[in-house]
Amino acid sequence: MNENLLKTGERIDQLYSDQVKIIQNKDVFSYSIDSVLLSRFPKIPSRGLIVDLCSGNGAIGLFASQQTRARIVEVEIQERLADMAQRSIKLNQLEEQVSMVRDDLKNLLDYVPRSGVDLILCNPPYFKASETSKKNLSEHYLLARHEITTNLEEICQISRHALKSNGRLAMVHRPDRFIDILDCLRQYGLAPKRIQFVYPKVGNDANMLLIEAIKDGSIDGLIILPPLIVHQDNGDYTDQIKRIYFGSHENEKESKNL
Amino acid sequence: MNENLLKTGERIDQLYSDQVKIIQNKDVFSYSIDSVLLSRFPKIPSRGLIVDLCSGNGAIGLFASQQTRARIVEVEIQERLADMAQRSIKLNQLEEQVSMVRDDLKNLLDYVPRSGVDLILCNPPYFKASETSKKNLSEHYLLARHEITTNLEEICQISRHALKSNGRLAMVHRPDRFIDILDCLRQYGLAPKRIQFVYPKVGNDANMLLIEAIKDGSIDGLIILPPLIVHQDNGDYTDQIKRIYFGSHENEKESKNL
Repeated sequence: MNENLLKTGERIDQLYSDQVKIIQNKDVFSYSIDSVLLSRFPKIPSRGLIVDLCSGNGAIGLFASQQTRARIVEVEIQERLADMAQRSIKLNQLEEQVSMVRDDLKNLLDYVPRSGVDLILCNPPYFKASETSKKNLSEHYLLARHEITTNLEEICQISRHALKSNGRLAMVHRPDRFIDILDCLRQYGLAPKRIQFVYPKVGNDANMLLIEAIKDGSIDGLIILPPLIVHQDNGDYTDQIKRIYFGSHENEKESKNL
Repeated sequence: MNENLLKTGERIDQLYSDQVKIIQNKDVFSYSIDSVLLSRFPKIPSRGLIVDLCSGNGAIGLFASQQTRARIVEVEIQERLADMAQRSIKLNQLEEQVSMVRDDLKNLLDYVPRSGVDLILCNPPYFKASETSKKNLSEHYLLARHEITTNLEEICQISRHALKSNGRLAMVHRPDRFIDILDCLRQYGLAPKRIQFVYPKVGNDANMLLIEAIKDGSIDGLIILPPLIVHQDNGDYTDQIKRIYFGSHENEKESKNL
C-alpha cells in the first residue's frame, strides 16, 4: 500500500515506533526539529478545533493529532507539499480527524468559523523576503523559508480573526525576529504568555524560540520557560531532546531517520 | 581604619581576595547576585564615563571600576545607602575614579553632560508600586525593590538624554516585566541588542534577565545569549557562576560572605 502512496524521492519517516508516519522528500520539504518542538510546546486542547498554518508536509498537525481528539485543519499554499500532507493523512488513516486545505492562509475563514479555533500552530517562513539569496534553494524551500507568499503580519492578523477569545497561537521562529514577533502579536491583540528559547549547545546563543500568545489576554504574567539545549558537546542529543523525540532514553535507536 | 568606616550592623564583603571591598548591611541593603551578574554583563568601556543608576550601596559601579579606567558616577536617592557607597569608595581609595551622587536620578544631567555617557548600568526597583505589600520590608528595601521613587520609564528617559549616540544601557530585571522593558526602551530610542536569561536551576523558569540596549541603534540583530544557570541540583553554584564570582573554580572558599 505504501508504495502507491509514495512519489519519486519520497520516504516515510516516523518519530515513534507505533505512532504517526510522515511522507518526506528532502529535495522538496522535510520537517525538522523546529516542527517537532513546536508540536510539543503548547498544551494541546483535548477537543475543539486546531489549525496548523504553513503546515508544509503536515508534520506538526499530524504529531498533534496523537495528543488530542480535536479536529485539525492543515493549511499549506504549496500544492506539492499539501499533496504530501494529504497522503500522510491517508497513510495514518486520520481522514476523520485531520483535513488538508491547499490555499493561501489569508483565506482561512473560508474553512473554519471566525472566532472558532482553539489553537493555531505555526512554523512560518523565518526570513524576510529581502534576505532571499535564492542560491541553492528549490522553489519549495524558498517559499517555506522566506516571507514571499505570507509574513508575520498576515499570520497574526488571520490568527486574530480565527481564534476564539482566549484561544492560543503557538509559533516557532528565530530570535533575531523576536521584536518583530512581539510587535505583530500586540498589533493583533495576541498577548505573549510563554516563551522558550532553544540553544544548539550549552554556551551557544539561542537559534530558535517557541512562543505562545493568547487572544485578548493581559500582557502581565509572561513566563520564560527553562532553556532547551539541543546537543551535548559530543554532538549527541541532550536528554531533554531525547525525551521529546523518543519519549524515553531507551528508544534512541529509532532516531535513524531524523 | 575599617572600624571607623563601619556603622552599626555593617560589614565588609569582598568578591575577590584582593579586589574591591563593599560595605554591606543586611538590615538596610546588601548587593546580591543580580548586581554581580549585571557588572559582568556588558562590555565595560576602557575609558570614558559610566553611570550606575539606582546604585544602592554602590556595588555595581565599584565592581565595574576594577575593569576600566573610565570615570564612574553612582546615583542613589537614599541617603543611608549613598552614605555606605561613599564610605566604600573611600575604603577602596577610589575617590579619583568613582563619585557618589545622592539625588533623584531625574536630576542626572546636573552631574553628567547631556549625551556624554558611554555606559549606564542599572539595577532598578523590580516591582510596580501597585505590587507593594510593605510587609516585612524596611523602608530602604521597599524603595530599592518597588517603583516608588522611580520607575522604568524615568530610567529609560534619563538614559536617553544622558547617553552618547551608540552609548549603551545595561539593566538587570525580572522576566515578567520583559514586555514593559522592551516598550520603554523603544519609546526612548534604545534598541535592545543582547539579552541573557538567568535561571535558578536547570528545569526552572527564568527569574532574572540581563538586557543591553544601544541608543539610536537599529532594531535588527538582537542576540539571545546562552542561558545562565545559577545553581546545580545539589544547590551549589554552577561552574558558570563560580567563574563569575571567583574567576576560577579553585577560589570557591572565598564564597563565605555571598
